[in-house]
Amino acid sequence: MAQFVIHPQLLLDAHQLGKFRLCHLLLHKNAVLPWFILVPETEVADLLDLPGELRAVAIDEAAVIAEFIKWTLGYPKVNFAGIGNVVPQLHLHVVGRKPDDPCWPAPVWGNLQETQAYSAAELRHITQLLQRHSPAKFVAR
Amino acid sequence: MAQFVIHPQLLLDAHQLGKFRLCHLLLHKNAVLPWFILVPETEVADLLDLPGELRAVAIDEAAVIAEFIKWTLGYPKVNFAGIGNVVPQLHLHVVGRKPDDPCWPAPVWGNLQETQAYSAAELRHITQLLQRHSPAKFVAR
Repeated sequence: MAQFVIHPQLLLDAHQLGKFRLCHLLLHKNAVLPWFILVPETEVADLLDLPGELRAVAIDEAAVIAEFIKWTLGYPKVNFAGIGNVVPQLHLHVVGRKPDDPCWPAPVWGNLQETQAYSAAELRHITQLLQRHSPAKFVAR
Repeated sequence: MAQFVIHPQLLLDAHQLGKFRLCHLLLHKNAVLPWFILVPETEVADLLDLPGELRAVAIDEAAVIAEFIKWTLGYPKVNFAGIGNVVPQLHLHVVGRKPDDPCWPAPVWGNLQETQAYSAAELRHITQLLQRHSPAKFVAR
């Protein structure tokens, strides 16, 4: 199988943090809220079209990120979506939300106006926290 | 366990079509595109917080609807999301999309301006098609 290539638009929009068994883990460059993007190594375009076993692995990996967002980052709510109308490569959004975030209660897609960048130190810190949260599942880049 | 009650806002927004083993199946009243809403019988608010077995059942039932949207209704793309920032009861959106629909490529949430109502005959027809698609899993109301 040829090497898997992450869609260039995703690499423009997000930082690459590392990889789970199936999914590459990206973090949206907008630091206003924790917006993770998982990219499973598959050619299938829609989450619900994935064969059952692969779908279960992708969802488990998304659930690890949801736990991380709640327990480590302290966000009470997680929004989860597979949309992909613009970037056709399957990618899953796992987004931490709270009632005082800048676009609550609207979904982030198309509604998050405020922007903020991560510093290199913040990216390193988040990656370290992820490794501590999931030493057996997550491999940092 | 007390009888499960679907959140009143969901009942205002959508028609009740029937039930899978775990999820009630609703259809958003806006007929511009096929927008199904699954409501699993649980008190857990976020999809990724559901215990693994329940999560798998909910996702399998969503996948039945995704298949139905693609194979029977002929939509090439399905958007899937668990958001719940406004209605706190867990509900999963499974939405048929195509490049000439009225809000492509934007996600439907907050962006679908055009509206259209289902007739009673259309609702009956969709329910019958669902029963034919999933006789073993879906029970019409």
